[in-house]
Amino acid sequence: MRMVIAQGGGPTAVINESLAAAVRRARALGAKTVLGARNGIRGLAEDRLVDLTALDAAALDAVAATACSALGSTRDKPDAAYLERVAATLDRRGLDAMLYIGGNDTARTLALLAASAAAAGRTLACVHVPKTIDNDLVDSDLSPGWPSAARFVANAFAGLDMDMWAMPGIYVGVVMGRHAGWLTAAAALWRRGADDGPHLVYVPERPFAADRFADDVRAVAARLGRCVVAVSEGIAGADGKPAVQALVEQAGGELECDAHGNVQLTTSALGEALRGHLLASGIIGRVRADTLGFVQRAYAECRSPVDVDAARRVGTAAAEAAAAGHSGAVTIRADGASLSTGLVPLDRVAGKKRLMPEEFLAAERADVAPAFLEYALPLVGPPPPLAHLDMAADGTVHVA
Amino acid sequence: MRMVIAQGGGPTAVINESLAAAVRRARALGAKTVLGARNGIRGLAEDRLVDLTALDAAALDAVAATACSALGSTRDKPDAAYLERVAATLDRRGLDAMLYIGGNDTARTLALLAASAAAAGRTLACVHVPKTIDNDLVDSDLSPGWPSAARFVANAFAGLDMDMWAMPGIYVGVVMGRHAGWLTAAAALWRRGADDGPHLVYVPERPFAADRFADDVRAVAARLGRCVVAVSEGIAGADGKPAVQALVEQAGGELECDAHGNVQLTTSALGEALRGHLLASGIIGRVRADTLGFVQRAYAECRSPVDVDAARRVGTAAAEAAAAGHSGAVTIRADGASLSTGLVPLDRVAGKKRLMPEEFLAAERADVAPAFLEYALPLVGPPPPLAHLDMAADGTVHVA
Repeated sequence: MRMVIAQGGGPTAVINESLAAAVRRARALGAKTVLGARNGIRGLAEDRLVDLTALDAAALDAVAATACSALGSTRDKPDAAYLERVAATLDRRGLDAMLYIGGNDTARTLALLAASAAAAGRTLACVHVPKTIDNDLVDSDLSPGWPSAARFVANAFAGLDMDMWAMPGIYVGVVMGRHAGWLTAAAALWRRGADDGPHLVYVPERPFAADRFADDVRAVAARLGRCVVAVSEGIAGADGKPAVQALVEQAGGELECDAHGNVQLTTSALGEALRGHLLASGIIGRVRADTLGFVQRAYAECRSPVDVDAARRVGTAAAEAAAAGHSGAVTIRADGASLSTGLVPLDRVAGKKRLMPEEFLAAERADVAPAFLEYALPLVGPPPPLAHLDMAADGTVHVA
Repeated sequence: MRMVIAQGGGPTAVINESLAAAVRRARALGAKTVLGARNGIRGLAEDRLVDLTALDAAALDAVAATACSALGSTRDKPDAAYLERVAATLDRRGLDAMLYIGGNDTARTLALLAASAAAAGRTLACVHVPKTIDNDLVDSDLSPGWPSAARFVANAFAGLDMDMWAMPGIYVGVVMGRHAGWLTAAAALWRRGADDGPHLVYVPERPFAADRFADDVRAVAARLGRCVVAVSEGIAGADGKPAVQALVEQAGGELECDAHGNVQLTTSALGEALRGHLLASGIIGRVRADTLGFVQRAYAECRSPVDVDAARRVGTAAAEAAAAGHSGAVTIRADGASLSTGLVPLDRVAGKKRLMPEEFLAAERADVAPAFLEYALPLVGPPPPLAHLDMAADGTVHVA
């Protein structure tokens, strides 16, 4: 086997565990060459490749432990001419296997490459290695990268809720997730008492109504003196219009759009619009909105042990599939924290999205359901210290 | 001794270490009563106190390990009538010592209380326990709470720089700090190579000029293909006008002000204004601005071991001072990671700010100087795994 491996899309805390595991397994299986492509498939189009065949084990371990794509990444969607440049590099280097670590867009790119190789009669095992903090890859129970990002979000909201408890106020935290609410839902993972926040969780799977939102916040704040809200960046109304667009239009403002006229979600606009809506709704007192932003996918020191295990397993399985000459998408199943991998056709994963199922969301409230916690808690690792100093009705103090 | 302890201002990751250490030491010194005031001095004004005299050691350890003020906090600045209500509670409970954990505003409140007790001929040892992520308490080499927040910011920017390296772009991260740049400066702590980000660091100690900023960013982006910027929320022009105000006015926008007409710094406005200014300056490509927000002071799982040590030492020293009947502000000195405490009059610390010294900032560039790194690195703990997969000119790969 002469293999190349690449990384696509956004980073995760464990993406390099998959890279290192695939390199280790390919070498153990006798691969003649193991190359890494710089910046995903773009490195193949531009012949920017690094030779990992003989990289020493300690260096590989150090790369594995580092957060964020060590080879660099891309979101390039290749057209026919681009694919020809890739094919030229594959031929020139004599490569017969490609592993591509990424999400559903990356899988689509790999499916295009596999189809073009097949049409040209080229022997090329194309294996997708799952990775995304969005947790939205189909045919898998988790997407490697999500448990660690989920842990970061859970840690963040546990602290934010204590912050708002200590000095009462209303806090709105915007979490990544354009289509699926998995990462936002993780904000609820370290809740223990009935009054712990986040008290409201808004995900894209449910239509968002601004007036209902303000009523929800008002009710929680009236009951507890504080309200902590977790919101997905991609929430939209029942009409499909992004919430940020509806809110900014309602407030008479203008919204930034990209070159294609699509509303920009990668700004702080949604958080500020939600904050403005609460203030305009007559909610008084401290109201803060933060957009967690890139730090939630790139933080250098927050890994779930199960996520590390998952990332290694999918890398190892991908190298084994490629060595056997198979193409496909590696999948991963979880029974609690016990993991196993599989391989499905690329088209089953490419471009598809797995949304949160109904049973993971509360029926009547903007919240997760207990089934989500049962699913997620085994995946994210043990909680951090979170002792509340509570006072009982009789004036005695106890720690919970 | 009959002691009450309270927490003021914003939270830190180690503020409860000071609380627990003070309680332990006061009990060991034979204190008859150790109470905790809910929500800082407000708990005294409203007689909301919890009895920590007999709280068991394991529960106290659990509280100590938890981030964010376990007793609750306040920013109340008491007037004469408020201080009378506090005095009434002190008398009713027979308290003769008060420890107040907080920053320079909290020290000022405590100084007011001490003066009013002295004027009334009441015996009350008033001891300030230093704490603030701003690192701006005078007569100390560090403020407990800052090393852990600094570690969070360093971890965040290390990942953000790798994120921007993997998929090139421009990133502006706004960090807490209205007057002092200590926390923003920490963004630079995990840099190793000359090209590592943050590439530009803007602190309130230096006047900010928007055009120079755009030129700086353009130059870095031209050289490296990316640019990572750390900015303090409190940066201001040479005329003292907040940068956010100048930028929003220049762009023809309107800025949110509080009830006193002061510009709101606790929104995402500065980051978005800096981003808008870069785009208006003709900088093209991906430009992202995030405001790190409350998570940087409240994250549940990022503590520096030296910070834990510092927080315990100041709590212990405060209990000892109070038991000896002394009032004052506990100070802390560092020789590398080796710490020692002292006690100075409250007025030396109350309301005063320690800015970054000239030698901690680069002379010509928007950056920290090596002396800052020498100061800070022993305080924040070991770096996380940060292995770069670099390619040498001869095509071989090496990990640094």
